[in-house]
Amino acid sequence: MRWTKTFLPTLKEEPSDAEVPSHKLMLRAGLIRQVMAGAYTYLPLGYRALRKAEAIVREEMDKAGAVEVHMPAITPIELYERTNRIAAFGNVLMKFDVTRRGQKTPLALAPTHEEVVTDLVARHISSYRQLPITLYQIQTKFRNEERPRFGILRTSEFLMKDAYSFSSSIEQLDETYQAMYDAYCRIFSRCGLPYVAVEAESGPIGGDCSHEFMIPSPNGEDRILKDTKSGYAANIERAETGRKAAAVPTEASADAKPMTQVSTPGAGGIDAVCKVLKCKPHRMIKTLIYSVDGKTIAVLIRGDHEVNENKLRRALGAATVDLADDKTIQEVTGAPVGYAGPPGIKCPVIADHDVPALVNAITGANAADAHVVNVNIGRDWNLTPVSLLKSSGFDISGAGDDIRTFDLRNAAAGDPSPKSDGTLELVNGIEVGHVFKLGTKYSVSLDASYLDDKEQRHPIIMGCYGIGVNRILAGLIETSHDADGIIWPISIAPYECVVVPLNVQDAQVMEVAEKYYAELLAAGVDVLLDDRDLRAGAKFKDADLVGFPLRITVGGKGLQEGVVELKWRDEKEAGKAPIADGVAEVRKQIDARKTKLAGK
Amino acid sequence: MRWTKTFLPTLKEEPSDAEVPSHKLMLRAGLIRQVMAGAYTYLPLGYRALRKAEAIVREEMDKAGAVEVHMPAITPIELYERTNRIAAFGNVLMKFDVTRRGQKTPLALAPTHEEVVTDLVARHISSYRQLPITLYQIQTKFRNEERPRFGILRTSEFLMKDAYSFSSSIEQLDETYQAMYDAYCRIFSRCGLPYVAVEAESGPIGGDCSHEFMIPSPNGEDRILKDTKSGYAANIERAETGRKAAAVPTEASADAKPMTQVSTPGAGGIDAVCKVLKCKPHRMIKTLIYSVDGKTIAVLIRGDHEVNENKLRRALGAATVDLADDKTIQEVTGAPVGYAGPPGIKCPVIADHDVPALVNAITGANAADAHVVNVNIGRDWNLTPVSLLKSSGFDISGAGDDIRTFDLRNAAAGDPSPKSDGTLELVNGIEVGHVFKLGTKYSVSLDASYLDDKEQRHPIIMGCYGIGVNRILAGLIETSHDADGIIWPISIAPYECVVVPLNVQDAQVMEVAEKYYAELLAAGVDVLLDDRDLRAGAKFKDADLVGFPLRITVGGKGLQEGVVELKWRDEKEAGKAPIADGVAEVRKQIDARKTKLAGK
Repeated sequence: MRWTKTFLPTLKEEPSDAEVPSHKLMLRAGLIRQVMAGAYTYLPLGYRALRKAEAIVREEMDKAGAVEVHMPAITPIELYERTNRIAAFGNVLMKFDVTRRGQKTPLALAPTHEEVVTDLVARHISSYRQLPITLYQIQTKFRNEERPRFGILRTSEFLMKDAYSFSSSIEQLDETYQAMYDAYCRIFSRCGLPYVAVEAESGPIGGDCSHEFMIPSPNGEDRILKDTKSGYAANIERAETGRKAAAVPTEASADAKPMTQVSTPGAGGIDAVCKVLKCKPHRMIKTLIYSVDGKTIAVLIRGDHEVNENKLRRALGAATVDLADDKTIQEVTGAPVGYAGPPGIKCPVIADHDVPALVNAITGANAADAHVVNVNIGRDWNLTPVSLLKSSGFDISGAGDDIRTFDLRNAAAGDPSPKSDGTLELVNGIEVGHVFKLGTKYSVSLDASYLDDKEQRHPIIMGCYGIGVNRILAGLIETSHDADGIIWPISIAPYECVVVPLNVQDAQVMEVAEKYYAELLAAGVDVLLDDRDLRAGAKFKDADLVGFPLRITVGGKGLQEGVVELKWRDEKEAGKAPIADGVAEVRKQIDARKTKLAGK
Repeated sequence: MRWTKTFLPTLKEEPSDAEVPSHKLMLRAGLIRQVMAGAYTYLPLGYRALRKAEAIVREEMDKAGAVEVHMPAITPIELYERTNRIAAFGNVLMKFDVTRRGQKTPLALAPTHEEVVTDLVARHISSYRQLPITLYQIQTKFRNEERPRFGILRTSEFLMKDAYSFSSSIEQLDETYQAMYDAYCRIFSRCGLPYVAVEAESGPIGGDCSHEFMIPSPNGEDRILKDTKSGYAANIERAETGRKAAAVPTEASADAKPMTQVSTPGAGGIDAVCKVLKCKPHRMIKTLIYSVDGKTIAVLIRGDHEVNENKLRRALGAATVDLADDKTIQEVTGAPVGYAGPPGIKCPVIADHDVPALVNAITGANAADAHVVNVNIGRDWNLTPVSLLKSSGFDISGAGDDIRTFDLRNAAAGDPSPKSDGTLELVNGIEVGHVFKLGTKYSVSLDASYLDDKEQRHPIIMGCYGIGVNRILAGLIETSHDADGIIWPISIAPYECVVVPLNVQDAQVMEVAEKYYAELLAAGVDVLLDDRDLRAGAKFKDADLVGFPLRITVGGKGLQEGVVELKWRDEKEAGKAPIADGVAEVRKQIDARKTKLAGK
């Protein structure tokens, strides 16, 4: 392709409405343009990069044994009713009516395709002999974004690779999950992404395993905790801390002062109480009343921490965990909402590991407009013993019958690692992929079942596996750019190289440049010829901005010496090649880079 | 790929809800499944065929110099307001609000992308030096279908290749138009489609030229008139007849009877009058009152014919043509709507060529509940002379000043050809492509202009070029199938060949079959191995149904003789090849077919 024949509007100025490097650079390098908030046009070079990423995804999916299908975006709303997901999707689901022959037809644009694919499989698969199978597609997804931003990182319309596996046993699921996990590693490696596979929350129903593939980046919206020592990494919802037991002291310490009730009129939340009592949140005990599988329990957490409801659910062996309603709170505390505290509360009480370490803490008084200060666990009141929790119907496995504490909060930077004697470090990340053992949630709702070899019927066991294809580009640019522009890897660069004639008015220069262009094309190199009648400086700036991996410069002193200049975007020094050998040399260098990225 | 590893649910029975062969066969051959009315999932083999068609389209677009972009489906409604197309799209446009941060955002799913692409170009192209350029995409389009039907022939979501050209002169537009036309011919040839390029109506605004690419098929919803003698073909809206002047007689003939007014109470339409007067529509003169650029005129047409408003518009050199409102009709006829006739009408009167030939015709009496019978032009009243039409402000070029008739109706089967002494034949067709000189309609509405070499500003001249990619498959199947199933051309077949081992339990058979499968894959042949443990008859039936171009059968007597059977789906007799030479022979035969389709 010649520069003057494609559509590549580069921008000299920083776009004022772009916040993050990938957004700025994709606009400046002429890769994308916004059509409306959350919807972008891919210009020719942006679309080339996207299609290259897509091709790598497809190749690895095929290699991993998945079979490609293509499901429509338009789907009947009824499918989401059957899986109870309309409320769960909420405002994200784009649903509307169309009128056909005077009748309203309600439909939704699929935000993901579990429903459609499971319904398809339910209609056509009935025997264990037809399992396992993995279906995938690379298709546009629609999700209304409350706050579309960061260019193509968060849009309402994006290209997703979504795969769904169907198995007749956990072993089959595990095998497919591993195959997908491995394929994802190859995909992101081949795309030149510095990915981390992190443990992710897998939710109450279904399988026991989920990983997110993250690109560590300061502009990522996801938070990851990782321990460099052991390689452990998990997202913040999932990360465990190394704490296994209560921090000291669990009983009143020597510094303990007398517990006193104080008046806190109208101050019913942590921040309000801190203001009134002039204290810091980390000295408070937050008392949250939960309904756990219908049973009421008080959960204590330090004032500056957040309860992780999935950890709570697992700690109590429960299926559902919800904050209790106001009526229940008033019943167990005898006070209005906002003044709950452990002393005298009429329900079991459990605490996060960090709570017993508090000396002279502050908490609710179970009375309107009142808190208690100088509270000390073990002196003023105590946690509910495990034996009592068990007899109340909580399924606490692996615990003795004594009093104990639990890991109930989100992990934080500085917490001990669960896998080594190191500490957890907090980094931001961009999620580019997710593998997930779904279990039977969808197959049960949508009647996808199989008969085993004894003619017994079982729900099919599912997994799902997603990649945000556009985010591969954004993630790459976030992590691979400099002050001058993008630095593409050879695998997904819009073009592998650019041929820059220093002066298009010089016939001798153009003869060599055209010869190179033609011979590189013939050699299967993905090449752009910068045939614009501009000064060399402007062309070099644009070449760096767009980020072609290799720049081949023709003209000037080099031409007199019979050489062309070969400059890799990610190397400081330029190389040279004799004009006669240049094409072969380029082919060799490009192949070497490709081989390296492919991990061959 | 192995049959047992893909997802290929063939059906023995005819699906009861499918009407046309392509729909029936795509369901039976396991290519598609319906998700809801107008929305289909492509199963693995269907999607392979679609992607092959897509690849051919992309290759030819690139070759023709078009540059690929990708625009979003989500578009701001405001763009369609600027081009005044919201009403024109009507119920077809899928528009709805999404809520973002409590604010409603109105959007539409693009049914086509003239607006988006023109807005993009308006922002980035400003000089004649940047023109011409052609941008294209292969992307999902959304159009609400009142009556989705015929499988993938008429759906609400489909894959379209749409290209838009931008030029600074008519000559540039003509060149691009021709390049696109030629590319379309190559695309449809390569896909094995028996296409016809027909002249199509280009509409009042914009260019003067438009062609539709049609697949003649009894189930097509478009109607084409063609003259085999000259090769002339046009769609029914566009087709000219060979008639240049009035058919005889133009004056009262010897058989003329006296004109008489008769009572036709409540009978205001052709059918009602025919019933009351026991006559046939072709003996009636239909009198339609039009408002042509604001001027009122009566148009006469035979009772069994339809006015072609584009022909009327062109005949009168007008920009707009609309049926007159009731008030105007009552004014010029002095009667209620439904009783208009030429005698005594108070406006100019023109007629189609076929009207003066009527002897003793029946027409409205310009009086309530009355018609006149035995009407004869030239005796009872006359048409308006051209001189009078001209002085009334109608732009009638190339006509003298006398009375004349015009080509005002849709052409019909049996009409004389405009290009030869033959007659027109009516065939149905499936539209698979459309090329269109748009002119400046969109560039004017959306401010897409350029400065010429004298710094003068002009609107950019546009063309648009569409292909329905899914319809390539449906069109192919409609025209290429037999009682047993689909007959794919080698270019877009889901797989080029199927290897059928007669008995998968026979180790010797499987050894040869597996060897063939592996070697064909290695030779770059797109091969499916039918590894199902079924009887040979069932496998042959499925192979014919799915329609693999080549079936390679391994086993039975052939194996004893050291040969495999090579059977082309579109040939009656099977061939044989020695086992050792079979792979090379297959490669050779497939290549020969490919070369032939590519027209090389």
